[in-house]
Amino acid sequence: MRICIINPNSDAAMTAVIRENAQNFAAGRFEVDCLTNETGPAFIGCYEDMHACEAGMVALIKERQAAYDAFIVACHSDPGLDLLKEISTKPVVGICEASVKLATMLGHSFSVLSTSMRAVPNKQALCRKYGVEASLASVVGPDGATPDWENPDNLIRLGRRAVEQDGCEVLVLGCAGMGHVAARMGEELGVPVLDGVTCALMVAQGLVQAGLTTSKKRRYHAKQTD
Amino acid sequence: MRICIINPNSDAAMTAVIRENAQNFAAGRFEVDCLTNETGPAFIGCYEDMHACEAGMVALIKERQAAYDAFIVACHSDPGLDLLKEISTKPVVGICEASVKLATMLGHSFSVLSTSMRAVPNKQALCRKYGVEASLASVVGPDGATPDWENPDNLIRLGRRAVEQDGCEVLVLGCAGMGHVAARMGEELGVPVLDGVTCALMVAQGLVQAGLTTSKKRRYHAKQTD
Amino acid sequence: MRICIINPNSDAAMTAVIRENAQNFAAGRFEVDCLTNETGPAFIGCYEDMHACEAGMVALIKERQAAYDAFIVACHSDPGLDLLKEISTKPVVGICEASVKLATMLGHSFSVLSTSMRAVPNKQALCRKYGVEASLASVVGPDGATPDWENPDNLIRLGRRAVEQDGCEVLVLGCAGMGHVAARMGEELGVPVLDGVTCALMVAQGLVQAGLTTSKKRRYHAKQTD
Amino acid sequence: MRICIINPNSDAAMTAVIRENAQNFAAGRFEVDCLTNETGPAFIGCYEDMHACEAGMVALIKERQAAYDAFIVACHSDPGLDLLKEISTKPVVGICEASVKLATMLGHSFSVLSTSMRAVPNKQALCRKYGVEASLASVVGPDGATPDWENPDNLIRLGRRAVEQDGCEVLVLGCAGMGHVAARMGEELGVPVLDGVTCALMVAQGLVQAGLTTSKKRRYHAKQTD
Amino acid sequence: MRICIINPNSDAAMTAVIRENAQNFAAGRFEVDCLTNETGPAFIGCYEDMHACEAGMVALIKERQAAYDAFIVACHSDPGLDLLKEISTKPVVGICEASVKLATMLGHSFSVLSTSMRAVPNKQALCRKYGVEASLASVVGPDGATPDWENPDNLIRLGRRAVEQDGCEVLVLGCAGMGHVAARMGEELGVPVLDGVTCALMVAQGLVQAGLTTSKKRRYHAKQTD
Amino acid sequence: MRICIINPNSDAAMTAVIRENAQNFAAGRFEVDCLTNETGPAFIGCYEDMHACEAGMVALIKERQAAYDAFIVACHSDPGLDLLKEISTKPVVGICEASVKLATMLGHSFSVLSTSMRAVPNKQALCRKYGVEASLASVVGPDGATPDWENPDNLIRLGRRAVEQDGCEVLVLGCAGMGHVAARMGEELGVPVLDGVTCALMVAQGLVQAGLTTSKKRRYHAKQTD
Repeated sequence: MRICIINPNSDAAMTAVIRENAQNFAAGRFEVDCLTNETGPAFIGCYEDMHACEAGMVALIKERQAAYDAFIVACHSDPGLDLLKEISTKPVVGICEASVKLATMLGHSFSVLSTSMRAVPNKQALCRKYGVEASLASVVGPDGATPDWENPDNLIRLGRRAVEQDGCEVLVLGCAGMGHVAARMGEELGVPVLDGVTCALMVAQGLVQAGLTTSKKRRYHAKQTD
Repeated sequence: MRICIINPNSDAAMTAVIRENAQNFAAGRFEVDCLTNETGPAFIGCYEDMHACEAGMVALIKERQAAYDAFIVACHSDPGLDLLKEISTKPVVGICEASVKLATMLGHSFSVLSTSMRAVPNKQALCRKYGVEASLASVVGPDGATPDWENPDNLIRLGRRAVEQDGCEVLVLGCAGMGHVAARMGEELGVPVLDGVTCALMVAQGLVQAGLTTSKKRRYHAKQTD
Repeated sequence: MRICIINPNSDAAMTAVIRENAQNFAAGRFEVDCLTNETGPAFIGCYEDMHACEAGMVALIKERQAAYDAFIVACHSDPGLDLLKEISTKPVVGICEASVKLATMLGHSFSVLSTSMRAVPNKQALCRKYGVEASLASVVGPDGATPDWENPDNLIRLGRRAVEQDGCEVLVLGCAGMGHVAARMGEELGVPVLDGVTCALMVAQGLVQAGLTTSKKRRYHAKQTD
Repeated sequence: MRICIINPNSDAAMTAVIRENAQNFAAGRFEVDCLTNETGPAFIGCYEDMHACEAGMVALIKERQAAYDAFIVACHSDPGLDLLKEISTKPVVGICEASVKLATMLGHSFSVLSTSMRAVPNKQALCRKYGVEASLASVVGPDGATPDWENPDNLIRLGRRAVEQDGCEVLVLGCAGMGHVAARMGEELGVPVLDGVTCALMVAQGLVQAGLTTSKKRRYHAKQTD
Repeated sequence: MRICIINPNSDAAMTAVIRENAQNFAAGRFEVDCLTNETGPAFIGCYEDMHACEAGMVALIKERQAAYDAFIVACHSDPGLDLLKEISTKPVVGICEASVKLATMLGHSFSVLSTSMRAVPNKQALCRKYGVEASLASVVGPDGATPDWENPDNLIRLGRRAVEQDGCEVLVLGCAGMGHVAARMGEELGVPVLDGVTCALMVAQGLVQAGLTTSKKRRYHAKQTD
Repeated sequence: MRICIINPNSDAAMTAVIRENAQNFAAGRFEVDCLTNETGPAFIGCYEDMHACEAGMVALIKERQAAYDAFIVACHSDPGLDLLKEISTKPVVGICEASVKLATMLGHSFSVLSTSMRAVPNKQALCRKYGVEASLASVVGPDGATPDWENPDNLIRLGRRAVEQDGCEVLVLGCAGMGHVAARMGEELGVPVLDGVTCALMVAQGLVQAGLTTSKKRRYHAKQTD
């Protein structure tokens, strides 16, 4: 089995973080390649960034249809996910969709850790799109002058607040670049901490093994070209 | 990795069907044992049957906490699932929860094939509990004097009606004993057909590999005994 | 008319509290017996406790089908309620279902007072199951090192917080053993305070007088035994 | 205990039907008076009719605050119900609210029998207002040139269709003037058939016995006049 | 085009505020008349007030059917709106409905500024009726002993709290008499501030230009009189 | 006032239909330009088409920020609407969002006429995104071998079925190219028929006159570039 993870942004350092997480999970059981979308924006923080990464992802996935068994979109905004499910005959898994749906299987409610307050409404909108809003305890983000979500201590502090004040029982990391904090955060806070890339690999791996892929019946029926 | 599947009812023939499906999916990648709940009822068709299978499952899971990495409840009514998540430190996956939540990742809407009209309301109630009611196209069941859902032709006819009349894009098999029909149904109808046992194995396998389990924070905090 | 109240736990002192409340309400208009489920757990605080009280309740209700006109499950987690509705031809009323649905008739929103923070998610899940989540202002529980919900002053303090901070207009006592506080709390806080046992008696009494009982059409159709 | 039922319309014949039903239920246990709102319209079939009956009901209830323990609005559109809850310190129960909420305690889903297709949207809107839309199987009304819902055979035919085609498990009579058909319909169709007047009496009787009434905290706080 | 705005209360000073706002918006493009409902209450703060203003509005609208192209109900409780849509063949627009639905087009979430805490539940209920509850961040009202919502500084302070604490992106003024504060509040807070009268004029003007009016198919079918 | 309508596809004939409708509505009161997105696909029937039209629309809108007071996206899938709201300081109105939200003000429920069954799920998803799913009676599309939705007779037949079978009270035309049928359909079927382009103009015109535009607080905050 070969799974292709696409980092929708052009930040090779983030791709490296994603790749390391992915290979830790794959552990040699399957091949996983982690590609940087070189025509994408440096960071995906708004709708314009999401748009800017889609053409590159379409090209990457179309060219590699035969080479991979499944594709993963490694940005927690799930940019272009409906589009990519449509153009691919192989499964395409978004890290937001996979993580928030798995979160509902592990506890009564979950909170999402966001890289910024700016992204909170979009994460709420995604949770509503995915039908998990009744299980969403909160979306929390860095506040104060220097957000600096890349500092693990800050992230863990945010997570603790979600557990203690918002009553969440599961934490979902709201950015593909947060995965390396998952283990330590889980230990310190005593709740499951879900990294989206790991969750998407769980789903993708399973779909490939089961021979399942996106329904092509109506919503994701590929465009007819001839 | 060792996964334990429990057939909540006492029907060893159904256990055999489940076991065969499970081993096809596991394909030697992990060990999977499939146990019959010998103190359970012969078939699970109502709340009294669900109750009757719970004590046996509690005992099976408590005795095997150390021996397995995850447990699967192989009845599409998910009998006792909240209870079993609570008593186990290892992941417990219900085949209804796993299959309906994965279904929402593969298409716009899904239908569940039920073994009887009697079970339709409970399946609707479970879909509401799991927050997937907005994606539920229909629950369909055998009608007429002789339901005979064990006949694959009848099941496929039911599935076709759901696709054509109710507009579903994904089918979910509503009984652990239907799994052997999934492949043929998928080919004939051209939509993903989800077998609950396979879906639960996908989730359980992934959770074990990722080192995740049920949150013990509040809802599923085990009873303190000392 | 004879109504049977079952205290699902084995705590005879709690049964005595329930009995006194019930007889105050019945006021000689109908007979009400209040039974302790002697095989149940001492307190019902988790899913394992709920499971542990079901077999005893099934036996109590089956043996007494002819002797009573209605049955009441006197624990605010409504343990086994679907099961008991199914096995009985007589009405079975849960004190949570009765109280939260009546609460929606008396004000814009209600809060539930819980015996512990541990029970909050389950009470939220029940309110969602019963379709009253849009009217649920909050579920509040004791915090701090010594919860001691049995102290009326603490309970009233909790209720006041729900009224003032969460904006609820009606309070629902979240435990069968809290009923004796209802009158004083109502007077001090100036809102209706609903005791579940009283609410269940209101519903059960009315159903018996009207000759109504659970529909046996599909969801609660009793198991065929022959 | 004295309960006052108000027929919001001016049709004394309908008042007589309501009175007979009410006294059958009261059975001498409490006093029940059934008043015709003489300034109301002959039939309540639209918003203008609802408006036209409100002033009369306000006057009737204000004049009788001391004389009765509870008031019932005996039209299944619950005309003016929020208003009447606000002006009265005694409980005011609407027959729609009481019947659809009790219906959810007796089965998985219910259907409402309407006197006309014209009234279907308003009944759907009321069910949404009362938070029971997830349990509403359908609202059915007479079709064809001569509706004639007063013919019991037609009503029973409508109810049968709701049970068989829409899968409802409980029927709610959508007009105060249908109560006399409840018993026969229940026997023929084998499901609980809820008459709104009876349901409202069940609730009102219980509230009075429990010493409960509408919360005056915010939504139904009476206008200050001095 | 001639649009008739009705101030449902009898406060001519409030009518003057509304008129000035309306004429600023109309800016000579269409005629707008602003009528005081002289038989209405001095202020509309509860259901009894809403009831008390309906008869006058019915009369005003019926008498002016031919004279105007559209009618606007200028109270943010939308008193009698269903009734007025039914009796009029011309469009009738409520300022609450227009403003909260337009708010959802301008941002992720909105908050409503209420004249009192007393009115909060009714505004929540209206938002639920109009299907915008998922976009409602909060309803905020004056607290403390002297609410004095007519003081613009207080209103702006309330709005700021909604933006900063509740995360709303759009503000909706919850009273027809607040419109003169909209511009200043928008400038100070940096978010769109919606005045209901302006929003209703936007909708009414458009409907008239497009030749559209309320559907008379079922829910708002006028009473047949002959 | 100058409003810019963008036909997201490259079909100049459809642009001509849109332009004619728009100018009929504008009637000289304001300027309206109707642009063809020349780099867009010939028709927008799937996610890939939506993606393919976005870059062109971004360019058209960015270049014309100063020249127009508002922009309209004239495709009933609202392609790129969140993106375009974000990049523009002027209002951007989608014809689906405007029409379905206005539809809820004109009747109890509405149906959308789709150009194909393929588009039904996406229209359902949009209605859910916009929070109007409770008012959505149905999405209907052409069936049979030759859909030919461009034939007005076929469209009217579809609309009639929605009114008669699905009980809708308002019809929404699900394609920008259907607008010329609105008047005749409304006359024949006796319900309001909403053309999206007209509805978007109603909203855009009003927003410009009121000096309102998209909130830039969080969800639609434009990307910082410097």
